[in-house]
Amino acid sequence: MKGAIVALAGGVGAARFLEGLAGVVDPASLFVIVNTGDDALIHGLHISPDLDTVTYTLAGLAHRERGWGLEGDSFRCLQALERLGGETWFQLGDRDLATHLYRTARLSEGASLSQVTRAIAAALGVRAAVVPMSDDPVRTRLRTPRGELEFQDYFVRRRQRDRVLGVRFAGTARARPAPGVLEAIAKASAVVVCPSNPFISIGPILAVKGIREALRRTRAPVAAVSPIVGGRALKGPAASMMKSMGMRASAPGVAALYRDFVDIFVLDRADGVLAPQVERLGMRAIVTATVMRNRRGKIALARAVLEALLP
Amino acid sequence: MKGAIVALAGGVGAARFLEGLAGVVDPASLFVIVNTGDDALIHGLHISPDLDTVTYTLAGLAHRERGWGLEGDSFRCLQALERLGGETWFQLGDRDLATHLYRTARLSEGASLSQVTRAIAAALGVRAAVVPMSDDPVRTRLRTPRGELEFQDYFVRRRQRDRVLGVRFAGTARARPAPGVLEAIAKASAVVVCPSNPFISIGPILAVKGIREALRRTRAPVAAVSPIVGGRALKGPAASMMKSMGMRASAPGVAALYRDFVDIFVLDRADGVLAPQVERLGMRAIVTATVMRNRRGKIALARAVLEALLP
Repeated sequence: MKGAIVALAGGVGAARFLEGLAGVVDPASLFVIVNTGDDALIHGLHISPDLDTVTYTLAGLAHRERGWGLEGDSFRCLQALERLGGETWFQLGDRDLATHLYRTARLSEGASLSQVTRAIAAALGVRAAVVPMSDDPVRTRLRTPRGELEFQDYFVRRRQRDRVLGVRFAGTARARPAPGVLEAIAKASAVVVCPSNPFISIGPILAVKGIREALRRTRAPVAAVSPIVGGRALKGPAASMMKSMGMRASAPGVAALYRDFVDIFVLDRADGVLAPQVERLGMRAIVTATVMRNRRGKIALARAVLEALLP
Repeated sequence: MKGAIVALAGGVGAARFLEGLAGVVDPASLFVIVNTGDDALIHGLHISPDLDTVTYTLAGLAHRERGWGLEGDSFRCLQALERLGGETWFQLGDRDLATHLYRTARLSEGASLSQVTRAIAAALGVRAAVVPMSDDPVRTRLRTPRGELEFQDYFVRRRQRDRVLGVRFAGTARARPAPGVLEAIAKASAVVVCPSNPFISIGPILAVKGIREALRRTRAPVAAVSPIVGGRALKGPAASMMKSMGMRASAPGVAALYRDFVDIFVLDRADGVLAPQVERLGMRAIVTATVMRNRRGKIALARAVLEALLP
């Protein structure tokens, strides 16, 4: 087993799964390609929510309940910002802010997002490779009855209350995969799509030119873990988005979105009866407990996925 | 007495003097024109050190000993930034950061620096008008044996260790005085130049087109308080700059820099023997205690200056 285990990751759900994976294999063998479609400029700072969530989680520093931000962080700056009448809908912890300041400063000096991400991960003791899908800007925009919304506007400020009629990734015409991404997929020993929202977490990654093609071509087995259990998303708006875009909100519905490159689809025991639907898409269905309630659950899921990928 | 009391201000020294002034007259009658030549973009944030020092001080929130930053602020973000290997030579408190985030966000939305400054002052309960010298960027640069240095690079990062051979204000060709500045000077009941560095605090203000001319023309009496006592600066590098630029480091040396527009020059008792030198410049010399050790000292100095200006 020479190539890395490559993971495609969004935010909190993915990070929890990766925590399990890093508990089962040597973290240095993980190559995580992270969505940057959620990135935003807030108060002039470059925020990369999914990169931070994955990095903080793999560093063991993420907030245990929320999943995002840092455990034990304070919010003094945000409180002072509120006093000034500033925008405070985007939660920024005091220590978390340092990451955004560091990233913004390095980017303005000409560093690439992958260089900055690597430096942050190294400083926090993360041994896995955490890599943005692209160093070029890609921005997820949502078509809603109110018009097109910026991702953070939809997701945080308006708390996902709008019906999503369509998703668009601005910037994909020019965005190239970050250095090493296509090579890692081509040489991977296994690839896994984390249990993340297929539209707004995995969708942007697949929309970067060359990545979907590389996933289709790699010789490595490719698995995906369903983010939908019992017709509901484990976290976030995946299920309601599927419905509002005219799809079934179900595990096989997600599998269908990945049918051109996924070999193994992992669904929860609650959805065991749907396994034949998945198999009809030409994938192998693995039924196991996918709801990660604690570290044991994460480890167990990671083992089940790895056993299916690398028996 | 209809017009405002207009003050020209740099950072900590000026703010302390203004605190006294605001204790003697109705703060709402003060119009403070503040140096923005020290402004800098740090970590992508727009920092206005002198505006913040004046605003925090008049709000009663400034750090009592240091003079800059907020009393009781924490530095968690900065500590986290250090862990990341980021630049930490510019001290940013957690609550102080909110001011920079707010300013940066509002400016990027198209607000002017004076609008943002007014909003911050209002939110913090400051009744005096705190006004940047210009809404347009002016940047103080220092000629040194190492080449030209940005202001914060010279002042904070390199701790004023370089010999200053000259001072230049980039941007003055285009910078206009902020709205209300020229009118306030023209209609002032009195004008006072705070005890600030004449080159790097008052110099940039005087370099904005129209301001020096307005000071020469106003019918209001104009006073200046010496920042040099006994040949030494009360704070900062004023004395060593005077010497390295070939001047005498003395109160009359400062007076000479202002001779075209100042009527009354206030010098410390320690420099009483120099009063005739000041008077030879065509100014009235007022000798009083100018070293403000506490609130009583500030009040006493403010009273002495006001009595000379508005007998």
